[in-house]
Amino acid sequence: MDVLTLGNAMVDVLALVSDEELTGLGLEKNVWGLLDAEQAQRLYAAMPAGVEVSGGSAANTAIGVASLGGSSQYIGKVNDDQLGEVFVHDLRSTGVAYDTPVAKGGAPTGRCLIFVTPDAHRTMRPFLGAAHELTVDDVREDAVASAQVTYAEGFWDAECARDAFRKALEIAHGAGRKAALSLSDVVCVNNFHVDFMGVLEAGQIDILFGNEAELLALFPDTALEAAVERVRGLCPVVVVTRSEHGSIVVAGDETHEVAAAPVDEVVDTTGAGDLFAAGFLFGLTHGEPLARCAELGSLCAAEVISHVGARPQCRLADLVASS
Amino acid sequence: MDVLTLGNAMVDVLALVSDEELTGLGLEKNVWGLLDAEQAQRLYAAMPAGVEVSGGSAANTAIGVASLGGSSQYIGKVNDDQLGEVFVHDLRSTGVAYDTPVAKGGAPTGRCLIFVTPDAHRTMRPFLGAAHELTVDDVREDAVASAQVTYAEGFWDAECARDAFRKALEIAHGAGRKAALSLSDVVCVNNFHVDFMGVLEAGQIDILFGNEAELLALFPDTALEAAVERVRGLCPVVVVTRSEHGSIVVAGDETHEVAAAPVDEVVDTTGAGDLFAAGFLFGLTHGEPLARCAELGSLCAAEVISHVGARPQCRLADLVASS
Repeated sequence: MDVLTLGNAMVDVLALVSDEELTGLGLEKNVWGLLDAEQAQRLYAAMPAGVEVSGGSAANTAIGVASLGGSSQYIGKVNDDQLGEVFVHDLRSTGVAYDTPVAKGGAPTGRCLIFVTPDAHRTMRPFLGAAHELTVDDVREDAVASAQVTYAEGFWDAECARDAFRKALEIAHGAGRKAALSLSDVVCVNNFHVDFMGVLEAGQIDILFGNEAELLALFPDTALEAAVERVRGLCPVVVVTRSEHGSIVVAGDETHEVAAAPVDEVVDTTGAGDLFAAGFLFGLTHGEPLARCAELGSLCAAEVISHVGARPQCRLADLVASS
Repeated sequence: MDVLTLGNAMVDVLALVSDEELTGLGLEKNVWGLLDAEQAQRLYAAMPAGVEVSGGSAANTAIGVASLGGSSQYIGKVNDDQLGEVFVHDLRSTGVAYDTPVAKGGAPTGRCLIFVTPDAHRTMRPFLGAAHELTVDDVREDAVASAQVTYAEGFWDAECARDAFRKALEIAHGAGRKAALSLSDVVCVNNFHVDFMGVLEAGQIDILFGNEAELLALFPDTALEAAVERVRGLCPVVVVTRSEHGSIVVAGDETHEVAAAPVDEVVDTTGAGDLFAAGFLFGLTHGEPLARCAELGSLCAAEVISHVGARPQCRLADLVASS
């Protein structure tokens, strides 16, 4: 197994809105925020017609690895309902191994309301639903130990799920495998600063993904260069993504700056970070040098931002072959 | 009310497939065919990951009219489940009036598995589900009589729904309103030839929509020109769509040939006919001459074939204003 990922299982509901509509809904662009069941219902009622696409940050990454021709597994919880069925179908049909037991009764499958503005930015409002019900029992030691890299998204909002993520990262690192963490969002870094710094300072994270804003949130009151130096000392491989400015890979004494892959038209940036991680981790688990890993990440991110939705619309392996 | 439409309520599940994958699934390109519940489950299991978008031919048309700034109402049946919730949300949020009672228990909300090949053709396999349960009681006389045009799709497979469609067309025509029918698919014309010819020969249809193949299926063993002349005598307004070759409007002695609207890239032709009908009926109910109605139809069809899914991704009124 190349990569095992853990996260909140979600079906995305994406709608295209104008800046005025976004404001009218009381939403601040790019700012992430959780919904409870009642808020989710209210916001959905006010939301324009959308399209539904299986999502969930870490699930998108697992899909990306599989689409590149790698082997991947996902751990995350859905309910025994129609959206859960869609989520399971979409994962398995892409070749991702997925056997987390489905929740019966209880909260419905999680959904993430995503508002995409004409500038291709996405404003996300997830309702966790059944994703909340992931527990440490869903993390099988043999599965984690068999994966070259175990990757957790940074949305550690559900307490049970957070314990599950932490357990998986510990097992992976302890088994001599690589443990990878995505900072995921500035809100995550702020909310789980103690947790993230805890695992980093304990030396439990081998690969860290984050964008500039997330890195600065991790080291508040620090300039970017200083933040990079701080994190260099905490984690063997750090990947800082910088949207159209490419990415920086920091690994011990090495620093690699890699350009972004060109995109004809940026339509929807949902999933850009998830697919970057997929490309990077596919490269890493296939013996590519770090700079090439980042190139693969950029290529995958470029595909997913060229259309609506956070899952690739072509076989990424073909994309890489033709690039 | 400008337009009331009736049809099978469906959520579309669209997946991009290669020609080889389509053949591997045992599907013949462009050929339509109903699935029962078990077949739907089996084919879905073999289908690649998809995106879910509310669909249903006549519902797409109602959406198109609303998106153009017209008033529209829809009659069709979903179940009280998650996909039903999505369907209801997407209709109402676009401004379509929709109050058909939701089925409780029974079959789940209908879904249409759609396989889109690189040439942008779509091969559709609907599972009717709750759409089967539409009955004549769901057709309220006051609603039909208040609409300038009542439009039924040609998917008359469910017996109860067929009776409901027929009742609505009769009420509309009887109330001095216009009754419109779409031939929808060659398979529909073959399966319901007696029904379609029956309502046409009884003079109950005021506006008929069909493409060339459907018209030829309606008058087998006839050349296109002769078929056009036959139907000219049966129905006051006939619209024949011809894909990239535009459309022909036949009305009494008049014949209008209208060019297709240009499209940068044809991505997915799902919904082309539905949105053509929306543009045409919007024009007709707003006093436009027939040739302009067909131009509006072409414009709406061009939008919907430029992306995945059968519902417009922009406000069609803005598109018309800027054209």
